[in-house]
Amino acid sequence: MSGAARLIGVGVGPGDPELPTLKAIRMLREADVVAHFAKAGNPSRGRAIAAGHIRPDAIELPLLYPVTIEIPKSAPAYGDRIAAFYDDSAAAVAAHLNARRSVAVICEGDPLFYGSYMHLHVRLAPRYPTEVIAGVTGMSGCWSTIGAPMAQGDDVFTVLPGTLAEDDLARRLADADAAAVMKLGRNLAKVRRALDRAGRLGEAIYVERGTMADAVVMPLTKKSDDCAPYFAMVLVAGWERRP
Amino acid sequence: MSGAARLIGVGVGPGDPELPTLKAIRMLREADVVAHFAKAGNPSRGRAIAAGHIRPDAIELPLLYPVTIEIPKSAPAYGDRIAAFYDDSAAAVAAHLNARRSVAVICEGDPLFYGSYMHLHVRLAPRYPTEVIAGVTGMSGCWSTIGAPMAQGDDVFTVLPGTLAEDDLARRLADADAAAVMKLGRNLAKVRRALDRAGRLGEAIYVERGTMADAVVMPLTKKSDDCAPYFAMVLVAGWERRP
Repeated sequence: MSGAARLIGVGVGPGDPELPTLKAIRMLREADVVAHFAKAGNPSRGRAIAAGHIRPDAIELPLLYPVTIEIPKSAPAYGDRIAAFYDDSAAAVAAHLNARRSVAVICEGDPLFYGSYMHLHVRLAPRYPTEVIAGVTGMSGCWSTIGAPMAQGDDVFTVLPGTLAEDDLARRLADADAAAVMKLGRNLAKVRRALDRAGRLGEAIYVERGTMADAVVMPLTKKSDDCAPYFAMVLVAGWERRP
Repeated sequence: MSGAARLIGVGVGPGDPELPTLKAIRMLREADVVAHFAKAGNPSRGRAIAAGHIRPDAIELPLLYPVTIEIPKSAPAYGDRIAAFYDDSAAAVAAHLNARRSVAVICEGDPLFYGSYMHLHVRLAPRYPTEVIAGVTGMSGCWSTIGAPMAQGDDVFTVLPGTLAEDDLARRLADADAAAVMKLGRNLAKVRRALDRAGRLGEAIYVERGTMADAVVMPLTKKSDDCAPYFAMVLVAGWERRP
């Protein structure tokens, strides 16, 4: 026990177990409690990345998302259920902080960039000493896997959730030099149409499990179906005027 | 000597010497040649981050930017001079690759995101085995330093170079949920006006040397001058509808 309450959001990177930072590993090794988000019944991807660096005597605190498949995401009941889950998770972490334990929360990618840790951070950082350890984002992992120079010089780079409406996606894709479209899942057919309308479909690269041994990479025009996992990504590189 | 030609772009993160990844450190340790970009007369920031991980017997290859202060950036002569520098740098790296040496190029932040390494990558990756090791970006370092949850859910996040015209900056800042404005330098007064026009000035946080011991952080409205180093950044966090 370190004897000091501290919340630490620890970015462990995009998936390759060699892509956590030295600082992430030190924080995991020093923590009294290691927390991670996961779906009930599914192994946590973040925990798998960090597995080799968790002390055998550390207390593990899995935070298991409620099963909400029967409630549509747009329904108020969905938001209520998720908010209650984050409140309960923050309370579980706070119980350890109140007992003067340090709690490292494993975050895939970077803790403050589209990740679940932020829900704990906004609830607890005002009340407890908190530190955030930046991590390699999933999108950096994906563009490194394909070796695509993404943005340079005066390029504008935009991150677009695939959940946006098709018109909005098309307009924003036409307005950026470089883009990453995340959260593909059921949105891939729509994303494909938006890229086509923006005149960027020919440049789009589809990446699944970037940095992992089983990564899938192809030009989006070569992908014959619209099935994609939620964490797949489409990248459009910028930097056209190269010296 | 490893006996195999290989080009490796190695992201070493935003500045904190604990923020390189395990993979970056392994690549630096294994490389026959370690190259880095620097301004003549100035120490390389990237090399300083990686210093503890370069083998004493590695060949070091500094790539020194030409002094171009007398030529305006918009002049064709500037572009010619810079292109010639990248051609010469690529030739210097290629000479080692042709001698079957592995060459690790140290990259601050992430190699394929607004960095000099890309100029070598586009010249050499078509001809030599090449690998890119993703790194923690400067912007992740900055928002972790200030603990700002940047983007979540359906947020659109945009990276804007401060070199853009004021009208373009203002329009894009108003159109994004979250933004990072980079390359401040002489552009800070213009960036401030654009944030004000977009109604985002009150949310803007100024960050200098994020993740470093001497980091400077303040609300932009509290910064009383318009002097900023080139690598300073302004962040505007998104994520307004929090469950």
